[in-house]
Formats: sequence, structure tokens, C-alpha cells
Amino acid sequence: MSEPRGREAAPAIDRPSVGVGAVLIHEGKVLLIRRGKEPLRGRWVVPGGTVEVGETLEEALVREIQEETGLVVRPIEVVTVFDRIEREGDSVRYHYVIVDYLCRYVSGTPRAASDAEEVAFVACEDLPRYALPEKALEVVLDGFRRVQREAEGLAKGREGE
Amino acid sequence: MSEPRGREAAPAIDRPSVGVGAVLIHEGKVLLIRRGKEPLRGRWVVPGGTVEVGETLEEALVREIQEETGLVVRPIEVVTVFDRIEREGDSVRYHYVIVDYLCRYVSGTPRAASDAEEVAFVACEDLPRYALPEKALEVVLDGFRRVQREAEGLAKGREGE
Repeated sequence: MSEPRGREAAPAIDRPSVGVGAVLIHEGKVLLIRRGKEPLRGRWVVPGGTVEVGETLEEALVREIQEETGLVVRPIEVVTVFDRIEREGDSVRYHYVIVDYLCRYVSGTPRAASDAEEVAFVACEDLPRYALPEKALEVVLDGFRRVQREAEGLAKGREGE
Repeated sequence: MSEPRGREAAPAIDRPSVGVGAVLIHEGKVLLIRRGKEPLRGRWVVPGGTVEVGETLEEALVREIQEETGLVVRPIEVVTVFDRIEREGDSVRYHYVIVDYLCRYVSGTPRAASDAEEVAFVACEDLPRYALPEKALEVVLDGFRRVQREAEGLAKGREGE
């Protein structure tokens, strides 16, 4: 075990946290929130949060999206899994393992709450104005591609044989 | 936050742990270990272990596989992400979020160490004798399918145009 304890001022963390994020594309637009808290305070990102003890990834995702945006979503598939590690000298300030899911809209009307200061559904061509962090932009574009591929597949299916 | 603290005898956990596992298929056989420790002591499973603070998923995977089997591997792609939550009454005894990667062999000769009591490369048709836990079997079969699909793709590519 790497033992950061005792070498740092910040409270020692003994294991990574697990985060989940939702890429919800509904009627051709992606759901974004503007964060009201650190980290990334004031930035537009995909909604999400931390997995608590005893809850599955998908349960955490549904809970967090409902808390932040008022929407009920259904996780469909994993888009990406990645690490976010922030160091301060020798110690680790912050270590997240993040699992982002493509989601479907189930119900609800968007309203910002919890860590979200604002909520918006954003068309792909308007993304530049929202200045997403690099990884968030990557995952959103991946989401748009998956939804489009799926739509093309369905259209092909309907063309008949 | 769900707060299991104070309601249980076992040491309280305040967040899930993150585990990584390797599906290494090399020369048509998958790498398995027999665990020498709980949980799953005595059972055959895919090798892997826990992500430590400050290390990426892929770094953890390479380290764990080298510790348990003596082999150097390269992670290729995520095969699956899943939860393993064990409860005891109201409290959570054990909560893992596990990311399994398809891996490639880089170097080394297999020898068991750390949590592994035995190491084996196992052909798909011999899997029944190893009685893998359900999720491990599922991920191993998924790995064999991915490797086969890739091999077929390469063969098609070589057929020329």
C-alpha cells in the first residue's frame, strides 16, 4: 500500500472515490450542468456525482442526476472509464475513478439543485459556447456518435430487406 | 450520505474500493489464478487486485498481474465494469467497483505469488474444470469472443481486395 498519511496537511485519503456521470441525449440535445461547487466551480460539465457505500453504479447515477437536475434517467451503456488524480507535491489531493454512462430520458422537467447552479439541454453545434473540460467534451461527442449510430441502425432496419 | 458507521461490528467503510482484473488470452488460453486468500479462497478467478491512491487503473492492473503471476501485460480495452456489494444485515461488509480489461501478453514466465496460490493458462474447452464464479466466467468468455473477432477481422483484411 502507498501510505500518504502523515506526510500531508490535507486529510489523508486511503482509497480512490468512485464517480459516475451521465451523458443524456434527449431530442438531439445533451444535458449539461454548471457546477456551483469546487472542483470545476462555474464550469459546464455532464451531471454526476459520487457512489456511496452500498449503492450500485447505476443506482448512484440515477440518484445524482435526479438530485442535480430533477430528471429521471435510465443508464444504457458505459461510454468510458477514466481516472482523475490531482497531486500536491508528494501527496494525492484527490483521486476519482469515473464511469460515464450513456443514458435515456425517462421523466421530469429540468431544474438545477444540489451541486448544479444551472441546467441546460445543448445542441452539438452550440457546445463551443459551453467550454467543457476536455474529457467532458470527448465523452459528450462520443455520446452523440453512439446515438446517431443507433438511429442509423434503426433507419436501416426500417428500410426492409 | 448513507452512514453505516456505529451500526456494525466490522470496521466501517466510507467508500467503495476499486478493483481491476485482467483477461489475458495468450496463444489461445486464458490466464487464471487460484486464490490463496479470502474472498474466494481456493477458487480459480482472473488475476487482479485493488487500485491504490495515486495510481491509475492501468498502472494498478499491470502491478497486480506482475505481483500475482510474474507476467507483464498491457491493458487493451475495458471488457466490463460491475459492482460487488456484500451486506451483513443493515451494513455493508464489502463494496467493490471492478473494472476488467482485456490484456495482451508482454513478457515473463508464469509463477504464483501474492494472493495467487497457483497460476494456469487454460483453454476455453477446459474452463468447466476450473468452476469459475459466474461473473468471472462471463468476462472470460467475452474475452475469448473479442480475441476471436479480432482474429477474424485480421484474417479478412489479409484476404486482400
